[in-house]
Amino acid sequence: MQMSHRISGFQASPIRRLSPLARAAEKRGTKIHYLNIGQPDIDTPQVALDAVHNYSKSFIPYGPSEGLPELREGLVEYYKTLGVNDLESDDILITTGGSEALQFTFMALCDPFDEIIIPEPYYTNVTSFARAAMVNLVPVTSLIEDNFSLPPIEEFESKITRKTGAILICSPNNPTGYIYTKMEMLQLLELVKRNDIFLIVDEVYREFCYNGEFTSILSFSEYSDRVICVDSFSKRYSMCGARIGALVTKNREFLDSVLKLSQARLCPPDIEQEAAIAALKTDTVYIDNVKEEYKKRRDFLCEGLSKIDGVISCVPKGAFYLVAQLPVDNAEDFAKFLLNDFSYDGESVMIAPAEDFYVTNGIGKKQARIAYVLNTNELKRAIKCLDEGLKAYNSR
Amino acid sequence: MQMSHRISGFQASPIRRLSPLARAAEKRGTKIHYLNIGQPDIDTPQVALDAVHNYSKSFIPYGPSEGLPELREGLVEYYKTLGVNDLESDDILITTGGSEALQFTFMALCDPFDEIIIPEPYYTNVTSFARAAMVNLVPVTSLIEDNFSLPPIEEFESKITRKTGAILICSPNNPTGYIYTKMEMLQLLELVKRNDIFLIVDEVYREFCYNGEFTSILSFSEYSDRVICVDSFSKRYSMCGARIGALVTKNREFLDSVLKLSQARLCPPDIEQEAAIAALKTDTVYIDNVKEEYKKRRDFLCEGLSKIDGVISCVPKGAFYLVAQLPVDNAEDFAKFLLNDFSYDGESVMIAPAEDFYVTNGIGKKQARIAYVLNTNELKRAIKCLDEGLKAYNSR
Repeated sequence: MQMSHRISGFQASPIRRLSPLARAAEKRGTKIHYLNIGQPDIDTPQVALDAVHNYSKSFIPYGPSEGLPELREGLVEYYKTLGVNDLESDDILITTGGSEALQFTFMALCDPFDEIIIPEPYYTNVTSFARAAMVNLVPVTSLIEDNFSLPPIEEFESKITRKTGAILICSPNNPTGYIYTKMEMLQLLELVKRNDIFLIVDEVYREFCYNGEFTSILSFSEYSDRVICVDSFSKRYSMCGARIGALVTKNREFLDSVLKLSQARLCPPDIEQEAAIAALKTDTVYIDNVKEEYKKRRDFLCEGLSKIDGVISCVPKGAFYLVAQLPVDNAEDFAKFLLNDFSYDGESVMIAPAEDFYVTNGIGKKQARIAYVLNTNELKRAIKCLDEGLKAYNSR
Repeated sequence: MQMSHRISGFQASPIRRLSPLARAAEKRGTKIHYLNIGQPDIDTPQVALDAVHNYSKSFIPYGPSEGLPELREGLVEYYKTLGVNDLESDDILITTGGSEALQFTFMALCDPFDEIIIPEPYYTNVTSFARAAMVNLVPVTSLIEDNFSLPPIEEFESKITRKTGAILICSPNNPTGYIYTKMEMLQLLELVKRNDIFLIVDEVYREFCYNGEFTSILSFSEYSDRVICVDSFSKRYSMCGARIGALVTKNREFLDSVLKLSQARLCPPDIEQEAAIAALKTDTVYIDNVKEEYKKRRDFLCEGLSKIDGVISCVPKGAFYLVAQLPVDNAEDFAKFLLNDFSYDGESVMIAPAEDFYVTNGIGKKQARIAYVLNTNELKRAIKCLDEGLKAYNSR
């Protein structure tokens, strides 16, 4: 009676695995500032909450496996606001969060030991989706010195084998905040076309761009048959717990395959889909205000970090994370220290060690992902804790 | 650029794949009675809907990956009403539907080409969960002549190999309506103990027993470390679209493994969990009334079927399905005929061909799963359509 090898290789999520230590610290009376998780403190749009409060069905029914028609049609209209005009609702499949979209994509494209190429650091839970599907992630390292921009395209090319199913990027990037440029995307698109593979682009942070416009991968219509876009309502409308995401592609063979996986799990949650339909009607002022708020937080965090001795970080262009290099040998040990053995004025801070955001062993050991989802007052105190924590840690 | 082999082997769900034909028939003006899918027409308990209408969070947040504490604690109390008194909330992990519970279980217990033994016919979507995890289902055939009771335990024993991870049963059974007896369960428990494997029991229909009491597998405490119970709110509270299920087990190693999979997908939907917490407070009168209603429908359906020439079916003891053998060579062809080429008084009926509820090739070709989730007025018309449809089909 033993567990699968597949599962034995799993690490607990580096974003969540230190939570028991945080809870223990709270029990001791320490206030913890959570910089580890991308849980925005922003209100969900009122129209979406109203849809929940006015849910009018007398029973909560199964819906279509591909998602409610009104939601898929609503997304077609939404993508038009991004300049993507050639989508139909049949190009869209609603998933239970962006998480399920990624999991389905891996399963539909890859058999065990097939490969997906990914720039590292990357959203760490991708490792779990890969392991569940028994897919090997093949990393191309992006560097903090380069602001985590796209590594030379030749590096990607050199990693392509007969087992490669796709290249996966996230833009705006979790965890680095980097936004890939049009030129970088074109390089990738040309590469996947030349090698007859897919390009998967996770755009769940697309509304959070702080330096100018964003170009969706969906707007490169010449390449649309090999582009798979992962989307989610979680961050855009601060409804992370709704678990509503989407897969968007012009490749019908892929979407037909995913539909078979979708049918097995029956449908995405119904009430939350109704909330999502309503959320699409959110006034653009909401998004503008949210973006403004995050920009303020970003600037505040970056300035704060720049004043801490030995911390290296770059200014993220989007999303609400950054990867900082800390003046410690092991960021995980330091993160544990912050929760177990430290407090400043009765407070401390929780960060996500970045080592597991890399495939390559040993890289990222000194790095941590920091989410700026707290208001500036809290951020200020969190930065102070980090500063004092580093001093205390390094003078042990 | 091709899809995985894993996915190429997928059949579209036999429960849902004829839906386009049904929609086409509806477009032609034919009213379709849906006997193919277990979508109850019963109202969700008002307390659960009230919890939705009164959802009071200002944003929809990520919750714990293992589910909201209040929901897990609520389930501990619920299981006590079944006579299961030794559970703690740490023995319970909330999943996104019973579907995810099954998918997680397969991944946690099995590597590719490992085996799970299952009596056939079985809930057809299990095939998809197995394929996604690349697990082989090893069938033991149960017979309509035996009312689909448990096949001789020796047949299970003879199928156990070093690759066997578990035996999976569903009780009350979807699709047969059979409820395994205490003696049958003890035989299985002894068998899995002797062979050091797991017993997975899907009990999502446990409230729907029409001939006396139900014994949960969770009450056999002597074997509790090798028992995994799959549960769901979908049927019990007529909230199929909520996608709230659970895994319940005293085996911590298993639950720790599943937690790692759960962390990757972050959390189950939040609003629906709040609805589920409230649903647990539903007055028992609700369940009693629902059970009474289904019992009436069952008796009505069975009597109706018994009057159709050549149809063989047995009286289901629970759930809300039965498997009927039809006087046709191929139930799928007949199901298509009903939707494409037939109507009676402007109406027809949709049934789920049962062949894909079997692993063994060729068995079940003449069988269909029939769900009795319609009220007796509709059932009456549906049975009439089936009767007339059979006559028309066989006199072509």
